[in-house]
Amino acid sequence: MKIKELKSVLDKKNSDCAILYCSDSSKPNPNILYFSGYSGIGALIVPRRKDPFIIVPEMEHEKARKSMVKRVYSMEKKKFFESIHNILRKNRIKAKNIAIDKNNFTLNSYRHFKKQFKNIKSKDFFLDCMKLREIKTEKEIGYLKKSCDCADKILQKAIKNFKSFGTEAEAAAFLEYETRKLGLELSFSPIVASGSNGSMPHHVPSNERIKRGFCVIDFGVKYKAYCSDITRTIYVGNPNDKEKKFYNFLLKIQNDTINQIKNNKKCSGLYDFVNKSLGKYKDRFTHGLGHGVGVEIHELPNLTLNSKDKIKNNMVFTVEPGVYFPKKFGIRIEDTILFKNKTTVLTKTSKDLLIM
Amino acid sequence: MKIKELKSVLDKKNSDCAILYCSDSSKPNPNILYFSGYSGIGALIVPRRKDPFIIVPEMEHEKARKSMVKRVYSMEKKKFFESIHNILRKNRIKAKNIAIDKNNFTLNSYRHFKKQFKNIKSKDFFLDCMKLREIKTEKEIGYLKKSCDCADKILQKAIKNFKSFGTEAEAAAFLEYETRKLGLELSFSPIVASGSNGSMPHHVPSNERIKRGFCVIDFGVKYKAYCSDITRTIYVGNPNDKEKKFYNFLLKIQNDTINQIKNNKKCSGLYDFVNKSLGKYKDRFTHGLGHGVGVEIHELPNLTLNSKDKIKNNMVFTVEPGVYFPKKFGIRIEDTILFKNKTTVLTKTSKDLLIM
Repeated sequence: MKIKELKSVLDKKNSDCAILYCSDSSKPNPNILYFSGYSGIGALIVPRRKDPFIIVPEMEHEKARKSMVKRVYSMEKKKFFESIHNILRKNRIKAKNIAIDKNNFTLNSYRHFKKQFKNIKSKDFFLDCMKLREIKTEKEIGYLKKSCDCADKILQKAIKNFKSFGTEAEAAAFLEYETRKLGLELSFSPIVASGSNGSMPHHVPSNERIKRGFCVIDFGVKYKAYCSDITRTIYVGNPNDKEKKFYNFLLKIQNDTINQIKNNKKCSGLYDFVNKSLGKYKDRFTHGLGHGVGVEIHELPNLTLNSKDKIKNNMVFTVEPGVYFPKKFGIRIEDTILFKNKTTVLTKTSKDLLIM
Repeated sequence: MKIKELKSVLDKKNSDCAILYCSDSSKPNPNILYFSGYSGIGALIVPRRKDPFIIVPEMEHEKARKSMVKRVYSMEKKKFFESIHNILRKNRIKAKNIAIDKNNFTLNSYRHFKKQFKNIKSKDFFLDCMKLREIKTEKEIGYLKKSCDCADKILQKAIKNFKSFGTEAEAAAFLEYETRKLGLELSFSPIVASGSNGSMPHHVPSNERIKRGFCVIDFGVKYKAYCSDITRTIYVGNPNDKEKKFYNFLLKIQNDTINQIKNNKKCSGLYDFVNKSLGKYKDRFTHGLGHGVGVEIHELPNLTLNSKDKIKNNMVFTVEPGVYFPKKFGIRIEDTILFKNKTTVLTKTSKDLLIM
């Protein structure tokens, strides 16, 4: 995506080329994935005046050739930055001023990098990448819609089958299985947090029996690398009136927040709105209100207290207020939202309190 | 694990304390997990002369309190290094010479870090962490054995059910489902690569029909955070004599390599042994021979061409020779191995060519 726009960034920064790298297959670089469609060990080189190319270990060559970038080179075994340096030289790519992503460059890698690229000047273009990724193209919006559709369908199937699950782990396993069966990947490890476990927003599903009370289910898939994110809180057993009222109180806040979204709206303003609406419960809202989604599950905009971001056309992000009472319970309601002239909720699973 | 040994490292480096951090829940810091048992956003502080403690966002407080580290502080929202700085000051922890892990510290984070910690000297202790993690304790060996047992059982169940899978994705989904159902996590996304897909060592399971020919299945689980790793190559359809011979040729190399393992053996020597044994096929062996496993799926020792590592007691690592013929097929056979006075193969699933 957006190689042309990336080249404009290089123009503005007066950089000869951009070097994005990944040295660990278990920690893929999301910017390589975004700009090239390739995910794995290797480097994406984007020269300001020439076509981009990928350099990968021999073992990844065939996979990389299926990406959007047509030129693929193999690197020498275990000589990462040396190979990149040699291939740049052979291709007469000027590399005095280089743009690198300092959020995906570790101190040690940079030390190795500088051994090969001795007299270069490097500029950070992490934020430029994030800013390009923040505004989705039509193609990306199509993928994100499809991703949300799939997440909805799988989540609804899980809720329908919920009574057959003995443990949180079984419910999570079901979500994962249905995702895989469709040839999709998860956006993140599903969260199923019942009873008092619900008070931990990042609880890992356990293989103890599902507890009675509120049960938070947070789930998302990747469709063509694009993430969806949805949370529903259901109730296992019979909620009393106070519990029902509390759920509907949070649901109203979530819906009202969505209705506040408009062009140029400050994300911190949306966060403030939730905080104010929660009144005396605002201290029980212990995380951000939401985050952009794309090739990563967390990207711009940030819907947090100190965020400087504003809502713009073609942004896709979550709205997910939650309240957590340690050792008691938690409730979170989350949708993935598209803003494009108007607000569209992409995740459509019912938010009425479901009683199991 | 090994907090005492970590303090000895700080003594040697003349560091006042170690600071390990993680700012993104989707990229947990394996060293925090190793030393504390906590996984998620936050920082682990290990002062040279005092007990270690964890600093986490409010939302993770309850989860962090379940870790091995008993003291847990909450940080202020979105003020990561400022909070760490304040808590260190309040606790009168000397922090002039700090040990940091430069492989898990990005250039941008370091810039933010230095704003708070202005006149400090930082030393890298990444390799020290890896060296501590490389030699497993008895407790870790117990977890790793159990992890391999679970992987074996699940893989065998998948192989038994293999004929019922229509697609690679379904086979991968089954592996994942059985893992989750036991309340375990995956070490990595399972690889199921049939026919010509097998020539890509990191193929993502597709939702096309399983192809005839060799099918590479690479899988592992985490038991109490400890990874297992096993690959078996089965055959879908009827292999001809040449194919059977080729499989057994690779299997003999894998077994012979395992028999070469002994105390102080150079890892590069094991790699060389495979390369020589492969003869004219050595160029089709496009990845490393193996890697240590622990809280990460890839850690020390490295069994690669240029490795400086040697086999020592209480190391756990994989041996996984493979051959890949682009657009044709691939074969890989992998076990997780414990070396402790003698060599024990922890993954026990049969390696005879299984014909489906």
